[in-house]
Amino acid sequence: MYLASDNTGPIHPQIMEALTEANQGYALPYGNDPFNHRAVTAIRELFEAPQAEVFFVPTGTSGNALALSTLCQPYQSVLCTPVAHIHEDECGAPEFYGVGKTYLVGEGDLMDPDALAVLLRELAEGGVHTAQPGAVSITSVTERGQVYEIDRIQSLATIAHSAGLPLHLDGARFANAAAALECTPAEMSWQAGVDVVTFGGTKSGCMGVEAVIFFNSDRARGFAPRRKRAGHLFSKNRFLAAQMLGYVKNDLWRTLGAAANARGQYLAEAMCMDMRIQWPYAPRANMLFPKLPRSVLQNLATSGVAFNNWGNRDIGSPDEMLLTRFVCDWSIPYQDLDQFLAVLRTA
Amino acid sequence: MYLASDNTGPIHPQIMEALTEANQGYALPYGNDPFNHRAVTAIRELFEAPQAEVFFVPTGTSGNALALSTLCQPYQSVLCTPVAHIHEDECGAPEFYGVGKTYLVGEGDLMDPDALAVLLRELAEGGVHTAQPGAVSITSVTERGQVYEIDRIQSLATIAHSAGLPLHLDGARFANAAAALECTPAEMSWQAGVDVVTFGGTKSGCMGVEAVIFFNSDRARGFAPRRKRAGHLFSKNRFLAAQMLGYVKNDLWRTLGAAANARGQYLAEAMCMDMRIQWPYAPRANMLFPKLPRSVLQNLATSGVAFNNWGNRDIGSPDEMLLTRFVCDWSIPYQDLDQFLAVLRTA
Amino acid sequence: MYLASDNTGPIHPQIMEALTEANQGYALPYGNDPFNHRAVTAIRELFEAPQAEVFFVPTGTSGNALALSTLCQPYQSVLCTPVAHIHEDECGAPEFYGVGKTYLVGEGDLMDPDALAVLLRELAEGGVHTAQPGAVSITSVTERGQVYEIDRIQSLATIAHSAGLPLHLDGARFANAAAALECTPAEMSWQAGVDVVTFGGTKSGCMGVEAVIFFNSDRARGFAPRRKRAGHLFSKNRFLAAQMLGYVKNDLWRTLGAAANARGQYLAEAMCMDMRIQWPYAPRANMLFPKLPRSVLQNLATSGVAFNNWGNRDIGSPDEMLLTRFVCDWSIPYQDLDQFLAVLRTA
Amino acid sequence: MYLASDNTGPIHPQIMEALTEANQGYALPYGNDPFNHRAVTAIRELFEAPQAEVFFVPTGTSGNALALSTLCQPYQSVLCTPVAHIHEDECGAPEFYGVGKTYLVGEGDLMDPDALAVLLRELAEGGVHTAQPGAVSITSVTERGQVYEIDRIQSLATIAHSAGLPLHLDGARFANAAAALECTPAEMSWQAGVDVVTFGGTKSGCMGVEAVIFFNSDRARGFAPRRKRAGHLFSKNRFLAAQMLGYVKNDLWRTLGAAANARGQYLAEAMCMDMRIQWPYAPRANMLFPKLPRSVLQNLATSGVAFNNWGNRDIGSPDEMLLTRFVCDWSIPYQDLDQFLAVLRTA
Repeated sequence: MYLASDNTGPIHPQIMEALTEANQGYALPYGNDPFNHRAVTAIRELFEAPQAEVFFVPTGTSGNALALSTLCQPYQSVLCTPVAHIHEDECGAPEFYGVGKTYLVGEGDLMDPDALAVLLRELAEGGVHTAQPGAVSITSVTERGQVYEIDRIQSLATIAHSAGLPLHLDGARFANAAAALECTPAEMSWQAGVDVVTFGGTKSGCMGVEAVIFFNSDRARGFAPRRKRAGHLFSKNRFLAAQMLGYVKNDLWRTLGAAANARGQYLAEAMCMDMRIQWPYAPRANMLFPKLPRSVLQNLATSGVAFNNWGNRDIGSPDEMLLTRFVCDWSIPYQDLDQFLAVLRTA
Repeated sequence: MYLASDNTGPIHPQIMEALTEANQGYALPYGNDPFNHRAVTAIRELFEAPQAEVFFVPTGTSGNALALSTLCQPYQSVLCTPVAHIHEDECGAPEFYGVGKTYLVGEGDLMDPDALAVLLRELAEGGVHTAQPGAVSITSVTERGQVYEIDRIQSLATIAHSAGLPLHLDGARFANAAAALECTPAEMSWQAGVDVVTFGGTKSGCMGVEAVIFFNSDRARGFAPRRKRAGHLFSKNRFLAAQMLGYVKNDLWRTLGAAANARGQYLAEAMCMDMRIQWPYAPRANMLFPKLPRSVLQNLATSGVAFNNWGNRDIGSPDEMLLTRFVCDWSIPYQDLDQFLAVLRTA
Repeated sequence: MYLASDNTGPIHPQIMEALTEANQGYALPYGNDPFNHRAVTAIRELFEAPQAEVFFVPTGTSGNALALSTLCQPYQSVLCTPVAHIHEDECGAPEFYGVGKTYLVGEGDLMDPDALAVLLRELAEGGVHTAQPGAVSITSVTERGQVYEIDRIQSLATIAHSAGLPLHLDGARFANAAAALECTPAEMSWQAGVDVVTFGGTKSGCMGVEAVIFFNSDRARGFAPRRKRAGHLFSKNRFLAAQMLGYVKNDLWRTLGAAANARGQYLAEAMCMDMRIQWPYAPRANMLFPKLPRSVLQNLATSGVAFNNWGNRDIGSPDEMLLTRFVCDWSIPYQDLDQFLAVLRTA
Repeated sequence: MYLASDNTGPIHPQIMEALTEANQGYALPYGNDPFNHRAVTAIRELFEAPQAEVFFVPTGTSGNALALSTLCQPYQSVLCTPVAHIHEDECGAPEFYGVGKTYLVGEGDLMDPDALAVLLRELAEGGVHTAQPGAVSITSVTERGQVYEIDRIQSLATIAHSAGLPLHLDGARFANAAAALECTPAEMSWQAGVDVVTFGGTKSGCMGVEAVIFFNSDRARGFAPRRKRAGHLFSKNRFLAAQMLGYVKNDLWRTLGAAANARGQYLAEAMCMDMRIQWPYAPRANMLFPKLPRSVLQNLATSGVAFNNWGNRDIGSPDEMLLTRFVCDWSIPYQDLDQFLAVLRTA
């Protein structure tokens, strides 16, 4: 049972079909293919943003780092939360791509507007001695499974814009967040003040593709050569574009986001009955972050369930509660979930 | 007719099948999948190098830049020819990835061992003021369609090794070079003194995959985190590995390299009769670099042939000879080539 | 009255004399001068480290960043406290010079060994997804005026070394720390497990010079070309070396460190009687970090005292306590301090 | 006898006096001192450029690299000659500071306007695959002792500006060039189309200071934080500014430039009689680049003359002509030159 991440599942058939369709005959390389044009148009329509600049890249890390380095000067910082993927899980990709530093806003996974305002004031005092902020970056679904309400995004955007900073949304799980909010992509992004979105496909049924969307095309200046020199401009770019076409067609993206969320909610509801479990984060989408006793996790691990936890599972008090992550992708069968729940009950 | 590059053609069916096969069920992410293990093994067997470290990346630029930055310190230079892809066509990728500089060896596309030795002596005089060399990089098939004879590779390797430098081979068209030489991968690489190869699949029937092969695993230290922070570690890595499995299976790579070369030779033989054409570079594989009069190129371009040339095709004397590039991929039909030749005769 | 920093005072006469002496006649550039040789020898003797590699640079930021980037791979992180100069006050210099990231250990200005151990365990779990640590960096005198006891340095070094990491000491105020501890340079550095020291002169009577000292010469590999390409190899290096010679001669460094500390203690003792003042950090050397009411700071500022505080001095409740910094350099006259105390009493 | 470089000589007394004068009392750090303000004003007056942005840095390498990285995006290239100091003698400093690459214009040390125009056309064809140019950089006095005539600077500036590129002048020996041309600083810089100058003091009697001058203040955006994070913002900046004040006062800079040139011409005229010597570069300022037989150079070297040559002095035919460099600084006594000439005659 694969509950470790939503990148363990298969490619959705509709996306495989799109790849097969794109494989007919010849096409110009490096984005000069008709599929790229069609996919850009499809993204603009989906986001109701006809002027947006849209680029396709193969991974979330490349999308985030290219977007942020395009937004910032190399002597500037990006502000994010302490658990942000760009800070904790990308091996320093933003700094490598040219962001000066990451500075952390408050605690927790949902950025607090007040904490952002305070940090902005403190950094401004630093003058040339501190890497002045160049952008604010948030993630939804967050790295702890929560979803930003639209009004919180608006508050953060207002503060960022007041300081002259763009707001970036790491949308590796944009589909899950939008499905949870039951909102349109536009409502969750530019209408709430987001300037740049990394719109993820990889974790939601694609082989490997993300769309980086700049709602103000001026901000996109330099993205194209940055993508090239990073080795992320695919010569056979048509196969990135085709995935995105398949993902957007007939709102497959939303269907898959909702399917994954439904499985997450199914698990969460069943596990809520289990009094051994603590819930520091309320599950909103397809990821659960409960705390469980070490002894339970040890038993789970030997039952063949793939999952993540923080802290040493093997050594320590059996009663210690460890933060744990269970992720459902769109494809995982409900009988697998039932089987997991059965294992958990006896673990 | 697509003669501009060998990245315009379709994915070979055997590789599409490998992708489909890899899409059954679940697999751990980030290279912890069985396909990765099998593909690494397959590459080791193909290169007769059981100790080699093998990594998969999606593009040639990422493969070259990751390999070279792993080989060099950031204050060192890479030595290459003036037409090297890493110098002219990657938008500064090696420098971005952490190579200090590129310094150019001699003139032309085939590196001259004597010129290499001279440059090494000159750079050594520079001491700390000059970016001391960290690696030597060559390309075969070269960026002008020529192929390094094995003894030339050996000479270059000997000189590089005497200076304590590893030799890198950009093998974006390794298949075409090996097919032209009728040699084994081992003969063209580590047996000739090459330390690291970027073994290309993208230009030869794959969707987008290159294997970076370090024959001495010590030299590979740091490649894995560098790949991650560059955004080139695919969560669904199994689809990179699967392409390479399909490419290596039953020596498909060699079949496709030979097929592309045969088309290139077919074109070359037919064009040799055309007295308007000059041949500054003898065609050895699937790329031709003849010089043609501007007037002919103007006519060709209006006939729907996609190709590249250097210099302004539109403005200047009709008789001026311009360097031109025609590339055959493995799939281009011979009737297309015949049609091109007919167009060329009347152009 | 200059209490904002210890970089506002004059150059000590003995150092001016050393500069004048070095200005006789001609000398080879780039460190090939006799003054460099003599200064390296003097530093080795001072630190009782005859094998140490010693380099002179003009600023603390360059010394720290060059040292840390030499110790780390570019995909690795440096671990420091949240108030570390390298994190807060160098505009991202470590990252610019090639350190992957900074990760923060615990809270406060004195690094807690337990917190270091915990973070090391957490980062190790991140594998390739997290910028693995490459070095640990501490500062003494700290950025809040405290001094590391030698046994704490030993504890940190033991933990760092167990993880294979070197320990770096930012010694911008090494003289003040050693004077406070009444220890030898060796006791405070390599005998306690420190691997690399930035030994500061600029804040203590020099014009602008720091010595970067690697106690294990293997770790210094690459420092020289890094210094050159950063523009910190002075052609007239003899004037860096001469400053350091003047600074070390007759233990002037210790005399100046003690003189600055004595002034700091004089201020602290007088201010301890002032019940309006809170002391979150016990003053140990030449820097005081008391909290004072905003109204007092406003009055001080209009009295011509130069000092720093955190938080908006101009707007807010007059009773709010703001963290403040008063720094004494070696030269500030005691009558200036008395005058300041008089102003403070009536502020 | 020191003829290896103009960085071996002493600091001029007027500059030592300026340092002593600046050492009275206290001053705010990081450029907030009155000396900085006065030095900026003095440079603006000298260059007749009241709007110019002026920054002081300690070395030529830092001045060039900071200026060029401020002018360019990180995915762009700087165009220079093959012997440019920024390409050959700064260990990759421009690339380290954030320039994408250097591309070389033509051959020789004086940039040819036609060659620049040709390269610009070629690079434009490369599109996103090539590091597009971000700036053009020339050096006067060149690295082979020649001086750009003003009309050549104008031609280069016109071509650069037509392509939207700024023109940078590496003026490490600006004083010598202006003295040779008998022109004003304005005539040799912004009036001829130069956008940014690195105005050198270090090689002409200062301890270590260069002024980076942006004639259009818009182009200077980001220089200040870049200087900080590179460790080139001096806390005791007053001692950089004071040097520049001493250098500019009573046109000392021009006096010293002319004094060095006069010595260079004295040597050149005497050596012109020596039929063993070839002159590939006509000496214009204080540097001579003759070719001499290896045997002569071997004898010179054993006579205690410090100089540079290219090629192995120790091994090879005694008659082979080697390119050699003799540099006069402003201070070298004429009797030393006479002594050198006597040694040379018998060498």
